[in-house]
Amino acid sequence: MNRLYHYPLSPFCRKVRLSLAEKKIEVELVEERYWEKDPDFLRRNPAGKVPVLKMGNRTMADSTAICEYLEDAHPTPALLPATPEGRYEMRRLVAWFDDKFNAEVTTKLMGERVFRKVMGTGYPDSTNVKAGAKAIKYHIDYMTWLLDQRRWLAGDQMSLADFAAAAHLSCLDYISDVDWNRSEVVKDWYAKIKSRPAFRSILADQVPGFPQPAHYADLDF
Amino acid sequence: MNRLYHYPLSPFCRKVRLSLAEKKIEVELVEERYWEKDPDFLRRNPAGKVPVLKMGNRTMADSTAICEYLEDAHPTPALLPATPEGRYEMRRLVAWFDDKFNAEVTTKLMGERVFRKVMGTGYPDSTNVKAGAKAIKYHIDYMTWLLDQRRWLAGDQMSLADFAAAAHLSCLDYISDVDWNRSEVVKDWYAKIKSRPAFRSILADQVPGFPQPAHYADLDF
Ligand SMILES: N[C@@H](CCC(=O)N[C@@H](CS)C(=O)NCC(=O)O)C(=O)O
Ligand SMILES: N[C@@H](CCC(=O)N[C@@H](CS)C(=O)NCC(=O)O)C(=O)O
Repeated sequence: MNRLYHYPLSPFCRKVRLSLAEKKIEVELVEERYWEKDPDFLRRNPAGKVPVLKMGNRTMADSTAICEYLEDAHPTPALLPATPEGRYEMRRLVAWFDDKFNAEVTTKLMGERVFRKVMGTGYPDSTNVKAGAKAIKYHIDYMTWLLDQRRWLAGDQMSLADFAAAAHLSCLDYISDVDWNRSEVVKDWYAKIKSRPAFRSILADQVPGFPQPAHYADLDF
Repeated sequence: MNRLYHYPLSPFCRKVRLSLAEKKIEVELVEERYWEKDPDFLRRNPAGKVPVLKMGNRTMADSTAICEYLEDAHPTPALLPATPEGRYEMRRLVAWFDDKFNAEVTTKLMGERVFRKVMGTGYPDSTNVKAGAKAIKYHIDYMTWLLDQRRWLAGDQMSLADFAAAAHLSCLDYISDVDWNRSEVVKDWYAKIKSRPAFRSILADQVPGFPQPAHYADLDF
């Protein structure tokens, strides 16, 4: 059986979960408290990060390397655009969310509000929380600008860029940090992704100490 | 003419410069002091980061998205391995250097010793410098372990993984922060990359206020 070592509120893990589910590759989800640095876990991934995917006798780390591998080895349905230019734009946007959005928003909001409590590293730093709450507005406006020109974030087809973005936003939505009223096109886009069967497992996530808000799993949010 | 907006001691820019040079794609290098947030630059890349590549009428950002695009659109010589498994390992290692090595070593050493001075943000934080100096040892040992099994970092062919690693190490070597005596295989590997024609422009870099040390451009270091 394939196994994904993950943490429910990790956007990098969610991106991989969405790819696997779209490709109908079944995996057993194993929750990994990666900050506890279990030696077995470090043997699986010396980088000490989730996600880690065990498929057959291969163990793979890094969400982008894993998603590209899944495209290479299990190309249907395709989550990469068909042209080099389309693939470029998709990869740029995956990096936008996993690098810039993550640093400016996810680590500032989730990192402070959830991970400090879960890992026991003190109280949220309100300067960070404020900076994250401010930055997410700019990012939603940037998504609005993209989605005013395109059906999906990287073009006219759904791609890994949409999964990267939805992975971050769904984590933040779990702690009610996304203002869906800010942009109708972003809300419509999220509603389309959220209603995909591949999203079901993400909507079922539960984190002890952080009860799921009612709108989180509601398709009509 | 193609243009690369870059900064000499940026590892992300160096990775792209190496790919372009191996593929014999000529570019004019334009130095971009990205922290000054010039409006023209932000128009080119709303993420506000270097590298940015202008090729024909396309403007592209994010070093990994650019390198993948170059592989897609200019496949010869190939810097991606031939199998999905080989490509996975290469992408994992590119992320290892651009994500983990960058956070644990490059930002701690270069960020403190060079960028604080260049950007005028105060004195180096010695805790960070110490942490970076400690972490680089672990990373060189990890590279040694890989290179004991393989000719190049990701396998038996030179790939983007080697360029990502050499990009970070060459920046650190410019400030004499790499102990080449720690590992003979790593030194041999670096000597091979350093002697490639594609590396010449990197060895010619000069940063005002930081004179190039003698060993930096010496092929017999
Ligand atoms: N580049 C990695 C980043 C993964 C990542 O940062 N995961 C976080 C959890 S959301 C983690 O494991 N952090 C532990 C660490 O950085 O030591 C990927 O895309 O998989
Ligand atoms: N994911 C980007 C990262 C590039 C990056 O972080 N570049 C640095 C210079 S070495 C930068 O421009 N930083 C400015 C910022 O983060 O605002 C890439 O691979 O191109």
